[in-house]
Amino acid sequence: METKNQTKVTVEPGKQELFITREFEAPRELVFKAFTDPELLVRWLGPCELTMTIDRYEPGSGGQWRFIHIDPHGNAFGFHGVNHEVEAPERIIRTFEFEGLPEKGHVVLETAKFEPLGSNRTRVIIQSVFQSVADRDGMVQSGMERGVTESHESLDQLFEEIMIN
Amino acid sequence: METKNQTKVTVEPGKQELFITREFEAPRELVFKAFTDPELLVRWLGPCELTMTIDRYEPGSGGQWRFIHIDPHGNAFGFHGVNHEVEAPERIIRTFEFEGLPEKGHVVLETAKFEPLGSNRTRVIIQSVFQSVADRDGMVQSGMERGVTESHESLDQLFEEIMIN
Repeated sequence: METKNQTKVTVEPGKQELFITREFEAPRELVFKAFTDPELLVRWLGPCELTMTIDRYEPGSGGQWRFIHIDPHGNAFGFHGVNHEVEAPERIIRTFEFEGLPEKGHVVLETAKFEPLGSNRTRVIIQSVFQSVADRDGMVQSGMERGVTESHESLDQLFEEIMIN
Repeated sequence: METKNQTKVTVEPGKQELFITREFEAPRELVFKAFTDPELLVRWLGPCELTMTIDRYEPGSGGQWRFIHIDPHGNAFGFHGVNHEVEAPERIIRTFEFEGLPEKGHVVLETAKFEPLGSNRTRVIIQSVFQSVADRDGMVQSGMERGVTESHESLDQLFEEIMIN
């Protein structure tokens, strides 16, 4: 199934941030729920070939979370963080750290904003701010864009299933 | 009393980060403790004319915190955040939000590193990463440098008292 919505990743040279922008055919409350409800998160987050499990999930401001992606060979990729603010249905501000890096302590500040575009359409804008340009460029070179794009396509399907039922 | 240690604030034009660097005449464990022990924090953090109180303090990774500065007229300035990582005695990574801004959601990612310089001397390097250059410049223009410098001078005195006893 083709969708007309495209994931856009904006990476300006020399800056220590990037933006991910995507529109979805679903109302804002539902999109926000898909980003914060662990039962929905496991159904769309991550590249297609990885299985997503939740090690820890405390919803709301101040909550800690840890997710694990497992590839077909059984290799596990953990990532975790803590919510600075979860303001339904409009904004999530949290930290993010990928545990597969050679060194601990490379942390990202993520701000996700959910903008309503009419009653059944929502724009999501995620800003990731890095401790350095090198950290950002490393994330981009890791194939992040493919993973994000595939995640969003899974999310399109999830919304279709939910909206039909 | 004059001290030879100077607080250095580095603000490179056009970047969304700043660095605060300071050396202290105290061993790393003690400096780290002064940054994380609420009983010590209230004795040095903030400009001289403000009284510091702790509304919430959960130590360690994942902990939430909220401090309030009160001026001589009774005006209160709150700020809060959540610890991504507290790794004694070397590193603290946390979020920071000043509640006095016109709009909520302007959050800073702070990384504080504690480097030993011999047995009784420690360098502290704090990086603040902002969501925008404008946010950073607003913080700089608010008189942040004076507040930080005065805090560090109070901390010098605190270390002197502790080291003598």
